[in-house]
Amino acid sequence: MVIVMAPDASSADIDAVVDLVATAGGEAYVTRGVSRTIIGLVGDVRHFETLDLRALPGVSDVLRISAPYKLVSRENNAERSLVTVRGVPIGPGYTTVIAGPCAVETPEQTLQAARMAADAGASLLRGGAYKPRTSPYAFQGLGEAGLKVLSDVRDETGLPVVTEVVDAADVELVASYADMLQIGTRNMQNFALLQAAGEAGKPVLLKRGMNATIEEWLMAAEYIAQRGNLDIVLCERGIRTFEKATRNTLDISAVPVAQDLSHLPVIVDPSHSGGKRSLVLPLSRAALAVGADGVIVDVHPRPETALCDGPQALVESDLAELRDAAQTHAALLGRTLAEAPVPAAV
Amino acid sequence: MVIVMAPDASSADIDAVVDLVATAGGEAYVTRGVSRTIIGLVGDVRHFETLDLRALPGVSDVLRISAPYKLVSRENNAERSLVTVRGVPIGPGYTTVIAGPCAVETPEQTLQAARMAADAGASLLRGGAYKPRTSPYAFQGLGEAGLKVLSDVRDETGLPVVTEVVDAADVELVASYADMLQIGTRNMQNFALLQAAGEAGKPVLLKRGMNATIEEWLMAAEYIAQRGNLDIVLCERGIRTFEKATRNTLDISAVPVAQDLSHLPVIVDPSHSGGKRSLVLPLSRAALAVGADGVIVDVHPRPETALCDGPQALVESDLAELRDAAQTHAALLGRTLAEAPVPAAV
Amino acid sequence: MVIVMAPDASSADIDAVVDLVATAGGEAYVTRGVSRTIIGLVGDVRHFETLDLRALPGVSDVLRISAPYKLVSRENNAERSLVTVRGVPIGPGYTTVIAGPCAVETPEQTLQAARMAADAGASLLRGGAYKPRTSPYAFQGLGEAGLKVLSDVRDETGLPVVTEVVDAADVELVASYADMLQIGTRNMQNFALLQAAGEAGKPVLLKRGMNATIEEWLMAAEYIAQRGNLDIVLCERGIRTFEKATRNTLDISAVPVAQDLSHLPVIVDPSHSGGKRSLVLPLSRAALAVGADGVIVDVHPRPETALCDGPQALVESDLAELRDAAQTHAALLGRTLAEAPVPAAV
Amino acid sequence: MVIVMAPDASSADIDAVVDLVATAGGEAYVTRGVSRTIIGLVGDVRHFETLDLRALPGVSDVLRISAPYKLVSRENNAERSLVTVRGVPIGPGYTTVIAGPCAVETPEQTLQAARMAADAGASLLRGGAYKPRTSPYAFQGLGEAGLKVLSDVRDETGLPVVTEVVDAADVELVASYADMLQIGTRNMQNFALLQAAGEAGKPVLLKRGMNATIEEWLMAAEYIAQRGNLDIVLCERGIRTFEKATRNTLDISAVPVAQDLSHLPVIVDPSHSGGKRSLVLPLSRAALAVGADGVIVDVHPRPETALCDGPQALVESDLAELRDAAQTHAALLGRTLAEAPVPAAV
Repeated sequence: MVIVMAPDASSADIDAVVDLVATAGGEAYVTRGVSRTIIGLVGDVRHFETLDLRALPGVSDVLRISAPYKLVSRENNAERSLVTVRGVPIGPGYTTVIAGPCAVETPEQTLQAARMAADAGASLLRGGAYKPRTSPYAFQGLGEAGLKVLSDVRDETGLPVVTEVVDAADVELVASYADMLQIGTRNMQNFALLQAAGEAGKPVLLKRGMNATIEEWLMAAEYIAQRGNLDIVLCERGIRTFEKATRNTLDISAVPVAQDLSHLPVIVDPSHSGGKRSLVLPLSRAALAVGADGVIVDVHPRPETALCDGPQALVESDLAELRDAAQTHAALLGRTLAEAPVPAAV
Repeated sequence: MVIVMAPDASSADIDAVVDLVATAGGEAYVTRGVSRTIIGLVGDVRHFETLDLRALPGVSDVLRISAPYKLVSRENNAERSLVTVRGVPIGPGYTTVIAGPCAVETPEQTLQAARMAADAGASLLRGGAYKPRTSPYAFQGLGEAGLKVLSDVRDETGLPVVTEVVDAADVELVASYADMLQIGTRNMQNFALLQAAGEAGKPVLLKRGMNATIEEWLMAAEYIAQRGNLDIVLCERGIRTFEKATRNTLDISAVPVAQDLSHLPVIVDPSHSGGKRSLVLPLSRAALAVGADGVIVDVHPRPETALCDGPQALVESDLAELRDAAQTHAALLGRTLAEAPVPAAV
Repeated sequence: MVIVMAPDASSADIDAVVDLVATAGGEAYVTRGVSRTIIGLVGDVRHFETLDLRALPGVSDVLRISAPYKLVSRENNAERSLVTVRGVPIGPGYTTVIAGPCAVETPEQTLQAARMAADAGASLLRGGAYKPRTSPYAFQGLGEAGLKVLSDVRDETGLPVVTEVVDAADVELVASYADMLQIGTRNMQNFALLQAAGEAGKPVLLKRGMNATIEEWLMAAEYIAQRGNLDIVLCERGIRTFEKATRNTLDISAVPVAQDLSHLPVIVDPSHSGGKRSLVLPLSRAALAVGADGVIVDVHPRPETALCDGPQALVESDLAELRDAAQTHAALLGRTLAEAPVPAAV
Repeated sequence: MVIVMAPDASSADIDAVVDLVATAGGEAYVTRGVSRTIIGLVGDVRHFETLDLRALPGVSDVLRISAPYKLVSRENNAERSLVTVRGVPIGPGYTTVIAGPCAVETPEQTLQAARMAADAGASLLRGGAYKPRTSPYAFQGLGEAGLKVLSDVRDETGLPVVTEVVDAADVELVASYADMLQIGTRNMQNFALLQAAGEAGKPVLLKRGMNATIEEWLMAAEYIAQRGNLDIVLCERGIRTFEKATRNTLDISAVPVAQDLSHLPVIVDPSHSGGKRSLVLPLSRAALAVGADGVIVDVHPRPETALCDGPQALVESDLAELRDAAQTHAALLGRTLAEAPVPAAV
């Protein structure tokens, strides 16, 4: 159940709703949007139905949830949303390239990769300080030291930072360094993490679970939205199928399907889906042509020494081609290639 | 095992190879290419190894098969192949649109759909006279009457005809009307049908099985090639996964992967993969951008009355957009939009 | 649409129905059961609705098809069916073991394998003379020579023969040797083959397509049934999933689900699903415990030299354990272990 | 890399290893087993190779990891392990039934369900206080209040408690009430949670991810083991496939495969895989027949009012049949049906 507050509802009005819901054994999560505030109720819906919520001051509407996801649905938000990451737009009207190393290894490698990212047309820097790895014996990332490297490289290049968080307990720390929190494919249904990210006050990049239906992906986004954060960007990164010629099967159709069901921006990760450098450029073109709002790709100055996913990283000689593809497809679709807030020092 | 004949090998030389293989209990299939003849051996390879095949006149090379598919592999044919269907090219340098109704229902509907196809930039007409249907109670196609309709419409519009054959026993009949034989997803491993198509003297459009790996798809093509027919076009049409938001999951990565492994042209069917009209144009753009040699789409003058797959057919108002997309992406990639041999009478 | 004839309907009554349907442009397929005859109509159902079929003499009922499969559905046949293969029962009350070599290689190997089958508790002999292989260069079976071997071994051991047919054109020939026709996983939607098998007058073992839903499997059975043959046994043999630790994923739940939806017997192939000898016995036990009407397993006197699927064949030392498991689980479930019609000469 | 300490190694010896690893920038996790201590190293393996670990006092062996999972592999632990949950054995020689409500709703419902569990032959009580739900608007469980209910019901019935934990931050709290921690399918790769569970000092029930390969499942177990906890029970609960007739596809083959690769006990959840009450008993029989060390099933006094997964819960009239099946299959396989430590007060 969702309560839509009137534009002129006061804080006291909102508090009154929250308190009433609490008396019925529920929890009320307040989402403050630009024009109005939405309160999502969690708990047994049968208890809420006995409350006379419409009669409270400042309440504009009480919606029974028909679609399983409500706040992220396009049903009540026909216009697609634009999410801004430290000034960099992702969404309608823009084509946004995010690039960087799979993992932060050293300050030098990260800075080099960031300059490669800028050369590839990227306006945002990706890079992992916390790496969820199938094996406990694999490199797990540098942790906070990696976050500091990313922060330094942002100062040097002007590229805002997108980085993954893997545990609810780390959200506050990661959010203190990052401009956008990434939630990875294995954590798409880590609900505690989604809720913590929803309360962190930073935009969230939500990767699709490799086994998740599009509906479950939108429900995961709803977990974030319901805690008050609608600055969510969806990222299709390939699903698990019987085909083993690629690391995962990029579900290119998921882009128009998700854009039709939700108002949130949708981007594509061609690096993790294809798993091979030679597929990254063709899949990036496909993603942009199908209407994705951007792509996120791995780049690495020396993939052969990468501690993580080297075989799928683009190298120096690929960068101009990616930038050209992004510009060409942006122009074809009447979009603008998003730029970094401060010109990158390349 | 594959025997490559010298360019100047005589028919008698070829016969001598075939006879020797027969004495060892094997079968030899002769594939006459433009520049040279290849003989594929079937049977127990251990028996063939005892034969001194290299010593026979006209034999240029004897290749042990390392890749599981040999004749269709790009390993020994670095240059990608161009297949020509009654003058219409499919392959490198061209972007080819194939369009038409899912099923031939009436002469009028088929003619109208063919004119729609031409408006959409198509140079080949698709249409089913034999329809493999999950239910024995569903419309199964008009059979030979449908082939006659297609033939008449070709005369009227100039568009060569691509049509499906579902039984080895029908191959000769269908080939007498059609310009290109289509083998559907459910028959990708109907080996008797593949072999019959390999002997029919017409180009073959081989759809990927909805559960087939890319390697199995190429092995199916090898069955056709091995019977002497290398005029094969591969068609990615979606695979079966857990995701039910689309009819099938279009495996867009299969296009560059198959083009890398095989010299055969690869096209995409966005209609049967997406299963929804609204997805056909975005997926067509993705297919062309990823480097597909063409697309094959359903069009229907009145989808609401279609006997088969109406919801995925493009309608009148979509045609110009498909043609524009084909032209734009052809130009972007330095390709030419293929044209019908005789200008279609639209 | 299905027409149920009265128990005392004459041949002339049946002919009259068939003729009337033909005038409406449809085809009528007559299924003569033990107690009554059923006529399935194929063609445009809208045309049939204008006919006054109920008014014809001998017509007991005219059923609109609500379930997609009708003749094989349990809806109108609450009692599960018993299929008899040259005197050997498969279905309720019995546990039936089918065993033999994957492929017929030589008379000696086949006879030895048949004796192994009898030792394992089998009452039916399986063995392939026509092998559908992914590669055109793999051993394709001995063809008619293999059928003769199977027939000779049946004479010697008393075990009726189950063998695969892969092309509609071969059905008559195979049916002249075999006691039961097997349709393999790759041909589950080879509709011409299903229809030919439906007219061959022999029971049919229908393997589930490795990518087929249970509903599609039952629809494939309906294709056979609709041509007049209800002696169909369904065989679950594993589906294709992302998991690669086994050759296929045995869908053990499909047994009770299919038995609930259809009156046809359901058996399990643990050899092709597991793909490893060590899994055959545990999976056979699971199949019998879940309620399968039988199992079909590969045995081979010398798996290391097998021309096909050696790694999954049971060997001499496994046989007693399989027979014991079959007897134990039959007893647990109040079933009788089916026996060969003439005691096998072992 | 794994360091095996000698049986007589002292605490100081172990500390010395840990300290040396720390100087190389790594982390060392100590696993104290019954007979010897194992130290798993995390970090860049190339740094560890420069250390002379074998020369340290008390070090018996230094193993390079060849199998991706080491501590849970059967390679170095040929004998299968027995895990004990407050006196209830799970593993070789025993058949263990775990039963209870999907979610704790009220003290009365939980007590009733526990008594049903005991009637069904269960020696452990399952029940969720924290429920990971696809939708943020669905009932999320009672939290700590639910844990208290479970604890009270344990006091009343003698059944030790298995309950799910969904966030690393809750592990300590849940472990203070529960006898065994359950990690659910969506959290199988929530590595922070796995590590926290590994340090909690309670046995862990690790459900297979619905999209996880068997290898990934064992790697997830390795994350727990590596933090010092080898009391892990694996639970197969169905994987996600294209088939929609069941909630998930129970991968019955995973039981013998996992038992062959790992020394850990393996049980089956037939309730969440089948998703239907009518499938629970057949699938339980299949699980026990294939060799599973136990089953975990949902029971509910009034499934029609259940707040979670009612349709799959067994009811009163099913209990005797489950207990009989467990006893029969235990006897067949020479196992003993595990009993609750204190006779349940039913």
